Amino acid sequence: MVAERNLRSKTKEKILRTSLALLNNEGEPNISSVDIAAVMEISPGNLYYHYKGKDVIIEELFADFEDELRQVLSAPIHKPLAIEDNWIFLYIIFEEIYDFRFFFFNLTSLLERIPVLRPKFSRLLSLMKRTFIGIFSSLETGGHLVFRGDEADILAERLTAHFVYWLPYMQLRGGSGRNTKSLIHEGVYAALTQITPYWGEDADPYADLLKDFMTEQTG
Amino acid sequence: MVAERNLRSKTKEKILRTSLALLNNEGEPNISSVDIAAVMEISPGNLYYHYKGKDVIIEELFADFEDELRQVLSAPIHKPLAIEDNWIFLYIIFEEIYDFRFFFFNLTSLLERIPVLRPKFSRLLSLMKRTFIGIFSSLETGGHLVFRGDEADILAERLTAHFVYWLPYMQLRGGSGRNTKSLIHEGVYAALTQITPYWGEDADPYADLLKDFMTEQTG
Repeated sequence: MVAERNLRSKTKEKILRTSLALLNNEGEPNISSVDIAAVMEISPGNLYYHYKGKDVIIEELFADFEDELRQVLSAPIHKPLAIEDNWIFLYIIFEEIYDFRFFFFNLTSLLERIPVLRPKFSRLLSLMKRTFIGIFSSLETGGHLVFRGDEADILAERLTAHFVYWLPYMQLRGGSGRNTKSLIHEGVYAALTQITPYWGEDADPYADLLKDFMTEQTG
Repeated sequence: MVAERNLRSKTKEKILRTSLALLNNEGEPNISSVDIAAVMEISPGNLYYHYKGKDVIIEELFADFEDELRQVLSAPIHKPLAIEDNWIFLYIIFEEIYDFRFFFFNLTSLLERIPVLRPKFSRLLSLMKRTFIGIFSSLETGGHLVFRGDEADILAERLTAHFVYWLPYMQLRGGSGRNTKSLIHEGVYAALTQITPYWGEDADPYADLLKDFMTEQTG
């Protein structure tokens, strides 16, 4: 799959980049393959020669997103993060999601229309949850986090949901007009505040970290 | 608006009840006004006489949902809940949402297609958040919950998002095949576990409550 994508022609690559920008900026329901061809300044027939319709393009974009997010999510499974790298890590996940945001804004309808994406997306969410569990586990071993019962598992699931729905929720709450940086920043902050309640006795260093984070991003 | 709905004819009421059942059970994108007429055993023209299309029916169903949820959410603003009533309250909110679930499964596309619902839904979410803040505030005054900084506000926002996205998230995670009772039960449990970390010194009574809740529902 990856090998196949490495063999993409320059035209195919350009079609994908153009499509992604259009889908993200105009919203998926508002973009047709004719629009994509028009912006590319090629004929719809020429576009069709490369990709047999918009949904095939979306499948291919999803494959790219999946590759990139898998690489990001696998990193801390192979090697635990230094404690101060955790928020940066959350930031990177959000940036990946933001780069593919049209998908998250129309999740239900896209998964219904392109059912082949459903199991792939589901596995990606499972990997995300496993990554969070791995991070919590290393923070717990290091004595930083304290969990009772199934709290670590339920927090990992909840953070996964948080990443899936943050952008559409911000849109619902009228916050999508804010700039990218502050959208992602607030998403990371909202994620961190879900972890802080499980911080153990040495809660102050983390509270400081959170304060630094806020100052750095908004100051 | 309420007065107007009280004057609904029996036929209109029956159209609405039939539509809600179809939309919930078959999924909103799969149901047309022709389907609704067919199940009602009336002609599409007769249906059109009562409601000018599917989206008008959805608007009317939303108005009903809004009325009911507003009544539920306003209760603890007028009168604080007894501590053991809080989880029952969360349960009732979920039941309201479940009764109107087709809307939550296709939130983005419905709000785009019927933009008049957007500000109404947005105000409903603001009321939900205010209700949670009210509950937290009375639990904090009673010495049960302890919040630092903006934690109460951010928890209220997060719980609001939780209620909006729980059902579609369960569907994503392959859990929508479970029965209604266990879907709602797990949603309430996931909501409660977001509140427990802020429980103060007397954490044990609440942990017991949670254990009771689990036993009662799954036992």
